[in-house]
Amino acid sequence: MNRNAAYARRYGFPQRVRIVEVGPRDGLQAEPEFVATSDKIAMIDRLAAAGIREFEATSFVSPRAVPQLRDAAEVVAGVDRGRPIRLTTLVPNPRGAVAAAEAGVDAMVVFLSASESHNRKNVNRARAESLEGFREVVAIAREAGIKVQGAIATSFGCPFEGEVDVGAITDIAKAYAQMGITHVTLGDTTGMATPPLVAERCKALRREVPESEIALHFHNTRGIGLVNVHAGLAEGITIFESSIGGLGGCPFAPGATGNIATEDLVYMLHECGVETGIDAIAVTEAAAWMEGVMGRKLPGQAAKAGPRLKTSALDAVATACG
Amino acid sequence: MNRNAAYARRYGFPQRVRIVEVGPRDGLQAEPEFVATSDKIAMIDRLAAAGIREFEATSFVSPRAVPQLRDAAEVVAGVDRGRPIRLTTLVPNPRGAVAAAEAGVDAMVVFLSASESHNRKNVNRARAESLEGFREVVAIAREAGIKVQGAIATSFGCPFEGEVDVGAITDIAKAYAQMGITHVTLGDTTGMATPPLVAERCKALRREVPESEIALHFHNTRGIGLVNVHAGLAEGITIFESSIGGLGGCPFAPGATGNIATEDLVYMLHECGVETGIDAIAVTEAAAWMEGVMGRKLPGQAAKAGPRLKTSALDAVATACG
Repeated sequence: MNRNAAYARRYGFPQRVRIVEVGPRDGLQAEPEFVATSDKIAMIDRLAAAGIREFEATSFVSPRAVPQLRDAAEVVAGVDRGRPIRLTTLVPNPRGAVAAAEAGVDAMVVFLSASESHNRKNVNRARAESLEGFREVVAIAREAGIKVQGAIATSFGCPFEGEVDVGAITDIAKAYAQMGITHVTLGDTTGMATPPLVAERCKALRREVPESEIALHFHNTRGIGLVNVHAGLAEGITIFESSIGGLGGCPFAPGATGNIATEDLVYMLHECGVETGIDAIAVTEAAAWMEGVMGRKLPGQAAKAGPRLKTSALDAVATACG
Repeated sequence: MNRNAAYARRYGFPQRVRIVEVGPRDGLQAEPEFVATSDKIAMIDRLAAAGIREFEATSFVSPRAVPQLRDAAEVVAGVDRGRPIRLTTLVPNPRGAVAAAEAGVDAMVVFLSASESHNRKNVNRARAESLEGFREVVAIAREAGIKVQGAIATSFGCPFEGEVDVGAITDIAKAYAQMGITHVTLGDTTGMATPPLVAERCKALRREVPESEIALHFHNTRGIGLVNVHAGLAEGITIFESSIGGLGGCPFAPGATGNIATEDLVYMLHECGVETGIDAIAVTEAAAWMEGVMGRKLPGQAAKAGPRLKTSALDAVATACG
């Protein structure tokens, strides 16, 4: 067994994980300038060519609420479906579900905050009302033969309330499961996840809602996003969400980064002996391309530094380094 | 036992670690514009007030080689020694050792690259010549009653040669130990460390040079610096080097980040149940102050986002987040 595989085994990491690219949705939703539909499509197509198979492609939300994603149907229609990719989209309400079904998405994602204040702030509804509203979404999706997944925002802490009790997470996951939603994404909406919280929440879900599969969605707001992935891997989690370049932000911390960067995540996973099926180099090239689209540097690191074993000529610049 | 302490115990983390602030040296050495001596002194004093007790304060190197550190003696003389801090400085040669001894440093750090090409490029000498030269440094330091520590640059890979064999590390550590140098810092000069390499190198040193204490110095060049710290903690390492704000860079990757950020490291350690004796908030304030000194944003994250449990008013901006 090689060094990396031995490391993975020591920590009980899964042999292979799935990466869900959320850049087109979570990465872009707060961008003030509209990103061209063709760029959104090219983003997905390029990443699909790099081996990514799952995308949170957009959100069928009101164009007034999130103008950046007003082209949801065009994005879904424009993506090259020749590759075996899976497109999921957020749907905040039955109207969004109808539109998503018409667009031909592979899965719909309903979302609820673990904390009452954040849910009210985010979707102007109590958590119980949100859950009640999901029944109609599920019915629409079932009719169309489309899977529904559930996300739990502020799963590791709330920007208004502080700590979020683990019971809030398991209660929502149970409510989801009762509706037949057995794919649950724990969203670290404002970067409050820590490794011990990740371990605790994954264990609790496994124990109390064993029928559900768990996905983890971390932000790198406080620099420890990939350490949280490490904690998730040690719990046997096999689905992680990230955005190319680390595109995105935190609505409560101007200047702070958003999602963990896909290229850094792929780099870390491969170096820790976990397979992804993704071409690590192609994904850094996609991140560099994305910086061109956005016209600015993005927070991801692996693309800037290049491959680990890339060697320089001996006449390259070098300062005295201790 | 609380959640964080339980996490630390599960991974075999030490209860407490020492953080060595290397911003004044590694963070600044490649800055093209001279940072005022008073700012370098204020940087150390502020961080000392935040609870940091060890500093790599400067390098007694030729002012022609590293003009930024031409004020080495003034920096050491200017720092407030009223607090129980420990100042170490790089010394590349006997001349530097004499100057460091005169300045009254607490320890001298000699450094050697694990790879022959990098050592030649860095100090224009073969590794064997470097080691031979350290004997005189050790003699000067002993005469002055000052401890000598040894760093090993490119410990996890070389930008010219690629992979570095673990035997190169243990050989140098043995050579150091034979000279009485039993504090060895593994430097991840260009950000090539990975968690499995960290585990392998720490284990090999423990086994083959048990008399030496190990410090780890990671760069965040490819985004996984703190994951490497996690791997080091699991090996029981208790000394980590970092720079405030993540100040510094990688000479081989323009735009890539340098050292892991002290404030992010402190945040992660505390959240993983490891004590540092450092005030996490004060250290983020020092990082924000440092951005002012440098006149630009630095890569560290924890200072931008603020404390994990800082709550926002309900009328704060919030976009729809899934």
